[in-house]
Amino acid sequence: MPDKTLPQIFKFVDQNVDSYKQLLKEAVAIPSVSSDIKYREDCVRMVNWMKNKLQEVGATTELRDVGFQTIDGKEVKLPPVLIGSLGKDAKKNTICIYGHLDVQPALKSDGWNSEPFELQERDGKLFGRGATDDKGPVLGWLHAINAYKGVGEELPVNLKFVFECMEESGSEGLDELLIEQLKPEGFFKDVDYVCISDNYWLGTTKPCITYGLRGISYYFLEVECAKNDLHSGVYGGTVHEAMSDLIYLMDQLVDKDGKILITDIYKSVAPLTENEKQLYASIDFDPEAYRRTINAYKLAHNGDKEQLLMHRWRYPSLSLHGIEGAAFQPGAKTVIPGKVIGKFSIRIVPNQEPEEVEKLVFDYIHKKWAERGSPNKMSISAQSGRAWTENPDHPHYQAAARATKLIYQTDPDMSREGGSIPVTITLQEASGRNVLLLPMGAGDDMAHSQNEKLNLRNYIEGIKLFAAYLYEVGKLSK
Amino acid sequence: MPDKTLPQIFKFVDQNVDSYKQLLKEAVAIPSVSSDIKYREDCVRMVNWMKNKLQEVGATTELRDVGFQTIDGKEVKLPPVLIGSLGKDAKKNTICIYGHLDVQPALKSDGWNSEPFELQERDGKLFGRGATDDKGPVLGWLHAINAYKGVGEELPVNLKFVFECMEESGSEGLDELLIEQLKPEGFFKDVDYVCISDNYWLGTTKPCITYGLRGISYYFLEVECAKNDLHSGVYGGTVHEAMSDLIYLMDQLVDKDGKILITDIYKSVAPLTENEKQLYASIDFDPEAYRRTINAYKLAHNGDKEQLLMHRWRYPSLSLHGIEGAAFQPGAKTVIPGKVIGKFSIRIVPNQEPEEVEKLVFDYIHKKWAERGSPNKMSISAQSGRAWTENPDHPHYQAAARATKLIYQTDPDMSREGGSIPVTITLQEASGRNVLLLPMGAGDDMAHSQNEKLNLRNYIEGIKLFAAYLYEVGKLSK
Repeated sequence: MPDKTLPQIFKFVDQNVDSYKQLLKEAVAIPSVSSDIKYREDCVRMVNWMKNKLQEVGATTELRDVGFQTIDGKEVKLPPVLIGSLGKDAKKNTICIYGHLDVQPALKSDGWNSEPFELQERDGKLFGRGATDDKGPVLGWLHAINAYKGVGEELPVNLKFVFECMEESGSEGLDELLIEQLKPEGFFKDVDYVCISDNYWLGTTKPCITYGLRGISYYFLEVECAKNDLHSGVYGGTVHEAMSDLIYLMDQLVDKDGKILITDIYKSVAPLTENEKQLYASIDFDPEAYRRTINAYKLAHNGDKEQLLMHRWRYPSLSLHGIEGAAFQPGAKTVIPGKVIGKFSIRIVPNQEPEEVEKLVFDYIHKKWAERGSPNKMSISAQSGRAWTENPDHPHYQAAARATKLIYQTDPDMSREGGSIPVTITLQEASGRNVLLLPMGAGDDMAHSQNEKLNLRNYIEGIKLFAAYLYEVGKLSK
Repeated sequence: MPDKTLPQIFKFVDQNVDSYKQLLKEAVAIPSVSSDIKYREDCVRMVNWMKNKLQEVGATTELRDVGFQTIDGKEVKLPPVLIGSLGKDAKKNTICIYGHLDVQPALKSDGWNSEPFELQERDGKLFGRGATDDKGPVLGWLHAINAYKGVGEELPVNLKFVFECMEESGSEGLDELLIEQLKPEGFFKDVDYVCISDNYWLGTTKPCITYGLRGISYYFLEVECAKNDLHSGVYGGTVHEAMSDLIYLMDQLVDKDGKILITDIYKSVAPLTENEKQLYASIDFDPEAYRRTINAYKLAHNGDKEQLLMHRWRYPSLSLHGIEGAAFQPGAKTVIPGKVIGKFSIRIVPNQEPEEVEKLVFDYIHKKWAERGSPNKMSISAQSGRAWTENPDHPHYQAAARATKLIYQTDPDMSREGGSIPVTITLQEASGRNVLLLPMGAGDDMAHSQNEKLNLRNYIEGIKLFAAYLYEVGKLSK
């Protein structure tokens, strides 16, 4: 049983709901889209906004320059990384908390019911780009710290912070900062545990703690047939069109059942042991509810629960995302695009290494391109991050499980995730410590989609969860 | 030899270049994009702007309501069609002039060197969306009429006008107006000839007159797998993705050499006679210059001149335009699109009928879809317009050829075009008269593309050409 601190904190949290909503509204209003340099200033603004908030709860903070990225041959400055530290008590455990302040692109015209960058509450849900991915969780830490202050208790742990603003765009510059600068500087010397809240429950009711993530290998497949776009009436029939070449290549990648067609791509996937196979049976996951959430006509693998979980968590998948440079607007545009860039990615899994996967994809595409025999120009490039798994029996996981049970009155599922947070591995390597993913949001939060939301309940109980987690980790032997 | 009228007019035109540029600037500044209802008010504004200009040169005008179009199940009002009339002298020939006031979509971010809706002069070229397609030519008629007034001469012909603002979107509502209203009302009773200036020279130096157009059959191929877009990490591996189905279908349509794969699609194409075949030899067309204009790596049909001309003019071609609903932005968006709409079109030729082509495409797509065996939802719809040819030996064509030679000191090529202006056929049917296409712009004007332009020379000499054409038609026996 906890002492009186946590019940006091829970009460304090319940009394401050309005201010938590207000702060999330402010954060969502900053369109910190990292993939589009048009929003680069908003990214910098977002980082500074968060820096001030951390300072307000007593943390020392620092903005770290992580250099430049190259876009279309131009050098563009990356947003700084916000690092911070709160507490230096040698008797306490130290947790390093990571979060990201950037978001996926969003336009109301994509099909949002309200402006994506204006947080709106409807039916107990807070709608807005970044509400659940990852501004809500990042603010959750802030509110949890503040709640300890609010009830006059000192934090049971020391904290270190790493908040970046390029997560949705491959975390450019962060690996170098963590490994080449922060680690030698001793930033991780006192760190005992690493915690990241940037994922979701499996479903909509039962909490989970996550010990594995797929990696990602993202591809830009470019075909060019002409300097400019061309009128299909005037030029149709006289040029080798880039689009038909690109569509051909994209059609060679995956079959209708989701099987990846790239030669040898499954070769290094970790074999399924009998032991692991049995883990899936006990997970609380309802395929039909999952299907209804997304209104799919039929799920893959005939809707088999264990197959679905395995294909989300431990097998690679390939998605075709879209085409840059082609007609995308409503209506009947009669264009022959001059240059098109097909986007696809593979979610990679243990024991696939990014370099190995990239080589397989490049070789396969070049082979298919040679078979095509087109006179056009083709090139392919990639950006990748590895898959990650952790030991879920570690005391750190047990502490988080106790905290979760305290809030939600149920043992969390120990789960993996299909998504990718490449920094997880870097933090594991840089700290040498146990890394844990502690989700705040629910499985239907629609991160990366139209109408992204965070349930008000998940936000508020999540703040309590974070406070309880800090408490439980504080009790672990030093 | 002409009398003194034309030399006076040519001088007047040369003295008024600045005002012609200014008026084109005004017209280009109205973003009358017909395919996007966001710009519907601009379309209406454009029609009214032109109505005022016609009234200023003495025409009587009328705006005709052509009803509604259905977009996503909603009824949206179509822009009105501007009709007009100038002169009623029974001794004069009457020409019906058609033009369009709407434009293709354009964003600076598509790759324009300057704002598409701000006319800019650089190196003797007037850059702007609609400069050549079709606002420049429409204004050309206005200036030609005005030039007769300017030198104190009466027009040698009577004129009727039909200016619409939905040409780039299938001329919705126009056929009904022309056939069911204007024809019974006697609008075409006095019309002797029909003239349209909405196409281009074959190359960049030699003028042409055009007696044939391909039609178009435009397809919307929709596949849906889920209600919303999905995160590829969370859902990848568990859903049948709409994109892979769509890419598969789009890859079944055309091979790398541009051969259309739809069953029986070539069956009704008019056979190539020996007589027609020989016409292509004498046409002034330089494949290498054509290739350089668009910076293609290699032209289709190994760059053979006659094959290229035939595949622009008398054989069908299929172009893949793009995908609506998928990722199109720069950067690495990790989305599984929930609903995607593939856009492609076939430029159809004599003797292909739209209904027949649509049926072949629908049957083929449904067959391929059945072979695919996907559980997703697929649907396909089309909008089509027929191909058109006219007799180039008609006195009307000879009059236009004399006018062209007077301006450019060379006999024009009698050419066909790969593009589609479906209204050409409707006007031919409604009037029962000879229809002629008299291009103003050059073959490198980049209509429908980034950096659309009209050469200042083509604009100014085009005004003179139109004046000379009115003069020559005025001399044809009544």
